[in-house]
Amino acid sequence: MRATTIHAPFEIRVEDVPDPKVQQPGDAVVRVLRACICGSDLWAYRGDSARQPGQRIGHEFLGVVEEAGADVAAFAPGDLVVAPFVWSDGTCDYCAEGLQTSCPQGGFWGSAGHDGGQGEAVRVPFADGTLVKLPSAAASDDRLLTALLALSDVLGTGHHAAVGAGVTEGSTVAVVGDGAVGLCGVLAARRLGAERIIALGRHEARTGIARTFGATDVVAARGDEAVAAVRDLTGGHGAHAVIEAVGTEQSMRTAVGIARDGGAVGYVGVPHGSGTGLDLGVMFARNIALRGGVAPVRAYIPELLPDVLDGTIDPSPVFDVSVGLEGVPDGYRAMDQRTALKVLVTP
Amino acid sequence: MRATTIHAPFEIRVEDVPDPKVQQPGDAVVRVLRACICGSDLWAYRGDSARQPGQRIGHEFLGVVEEAGADVAAFAPGDLVVAPFVWSDGTCDYCAEGLQTSCPQGGFWGSAGHDGGQGEAVRVPFADGTLVKLPSAAASDDRLLTALLALSDVLGTGHHAAVGAGVTEGSTVAVVGDGAVGLCGVLAARRLGAERIIALGRHEARTGIARTFGATDVVAARGDEAVAAVRDLTGGHGAHAVIEAVGTEQSMRTAVGIARDGGAVGYVGVPHGSGTGLDLGVMFARNIALRGGVAPVRAYIPELLPDVLDGTIDPSPVFDVSVGLEGVPDGYRAMDQRTALKVLVTP
Repeated sequence: MRATTIHAPFEIRVEDVPDPKVQQPGDAVVRVLRACICGSDLWAYRGDSARQPGQRIGHEFLGVVEEAGADVAAFAPGDLVVAPFVWSDGTCDYCAEGLQTSCPQGGFWGSAGHDGGQGEAVRVPFADGTLVKLPSAAASDDRLLTALLALSDVLGTGHHAAVGAGVTEGSTVAVVGDGAVGLCGVLAARRLGAERIIALGRHEARTGIARTFGATDVVAARGDEAVAAVRDLTGGHGAHAVIEAVGTEQSMRTAVGIARDGGAVGYVGVPHGSGTGLDLGVMFARNIALRGGVAPVRAYIPELLPDVLDGTIDPSPVFDVSVGLEGVPDGYRAMDQRTALKVLVTP
Repeated sequence: MRATTIHAPFEIRVEDVPDPKVQQPGDAVVRVLRACICGSDLWAYRGDSARQPGQRIGHEFLGVVEEAGADVAAFAPGDLVVAPFVWSDGTCDYCAEGLQTSCPQGGFWGSAGHDGGQGEAVRVPFADGTLVKLPSAAASDDRLLTALLALSDVLGTGHHAAVGAGVTEGSTVAVVGDGAVGLCGVLAARRLGAERIIALGRHEARTGIARTFGATDVVAARGDEAVAAVRDLTGGHGAHAVIEAVGTEQSMRTAVGIARDGGAVGYVGVPHGSGTGLDLGVMFARNIALRGGVAPVRAYIPELLPDVLDGTIDPSPVFDVSVGLEGVPDGYRAMDQRTALKVLVTP
């Protein structure tokens, strides 16, 4: 089959690779209908995260089960399924409590020796624990299929940030990061009942989507100016709940700076850089909590899926550019140069 | 009156100072019956926190109202009261939501121009918002009076850490720090229903108190060894809830290291040192939350007071040395040299 590989920083290829097959009785093979490129794929693309030459890449996909191992009970060939960005056994204590990202048998798509999402098909370990079934009718609804793809990562990750930030009915929320995750954070905050949602961003197409998703205010500033602007908008206090969806020291510093005393920063931006950006003295004096991390998306799909299916929330606008599989290298370039927000891949 | 002052690192004196008087109509003057020395006073004592020469010190006290301003509605002369370690107006949004430490009109005892707790009497601003009445019968019960003094800081601070760490019925808790706050964290965790409480400490008198307070296990190690020991005790997983009651980079690193994936570190140790000790990459991968800060003790006194009064919890064993007011300088030396756990002051 054809699949995306990464050979060195900025060197993404689409190549012939071995067809995936069931190797363990719990495996399934899924033919990919939709995949996409994630902001976090850019850390590998830019060389900030090491990869072995030729390693697969891509961790978001949905598709149709093509083959199921003897122990797979929940899925049969022909089933439409979505995969969260990590696989998990579905049976351990962590899976039982909804923290599938800590499953000792879990792993990330595209890790060495495993298929990535940006290819024609994927071998899925622990299919019963990992995959979630979608209504087969969705396969013929292009817009819906794209919206459902967001369940594999960005929607659940934005939701994790909103939960970590403690968004509740009536809260004031601020969102740092205007990428797909930040925008899904806006959507998740509105869904959880936030009354006011302040989106930080300077890219008009993105802040436009933020407004569509429920942002009530947009702050087109960064750093100290952004902190001052959010404080102005909130009577000097800051936001109860802050979603941090970037992962740099500056974004974390901004996130703490715009949080209200007693509030929380829900962080889902993959941390990069040598420091944390956290001033613990400030957080201590103001009782600002930090809660988040890699999102256990698998746990959230059952909760979010009905709202995507019935149109209560529609994350599909985060996908602004669409390519075929051979167009994936162009997609990386577009996301790296921020000419695309999030690239949809239709193999 | 006589009161404790600090003139330079390691230079604590007891001196004649002006008698406190009602200055604002909301003030009360409280004659101190019991005060004490806090581990955090040692940062000033050691010169780690700057003080103006001659500044008062001490932030924990209980006593009898001697004089009340015209606007004081809740207290009258003769009332037995306990003061939390910050005063607060009792009327702002933060006070209303139980975060009195963020009250814009609040302040710390012993800050420049204000009385400290380690003296014969204290002028209390915003008496109605700050003080909590105690049953007058307690004044004649020496053990109870000492236990009630813990409500001014260490008991509420330990409780704040336990709440921040997410202690619930049945949790496994680990406590970093064998000072009075860490020990009160043990007591608070047991009160909140923790099933297993692992106290880290190497000082036998202190770990003995920890066991009395409810610790089920003691780990007499530090750093990587402590992490390994707690993991051994918890099937490799770590503790759901970690109380951090020290505030150094090493203690924070240990706290994160012994937390179970998906757990939380409730931190109340005043941060000191140049870094945070936090590895955000580890916290992100394992979804470990950080929640705590300066404890809004005023909010917790009404909840904790009945349990202290009826003996359900008795924090009095944290006071292991008692001095009169003139003995306060000796008390600082004893705490600095760790020959005393927490020094009670009876003016």
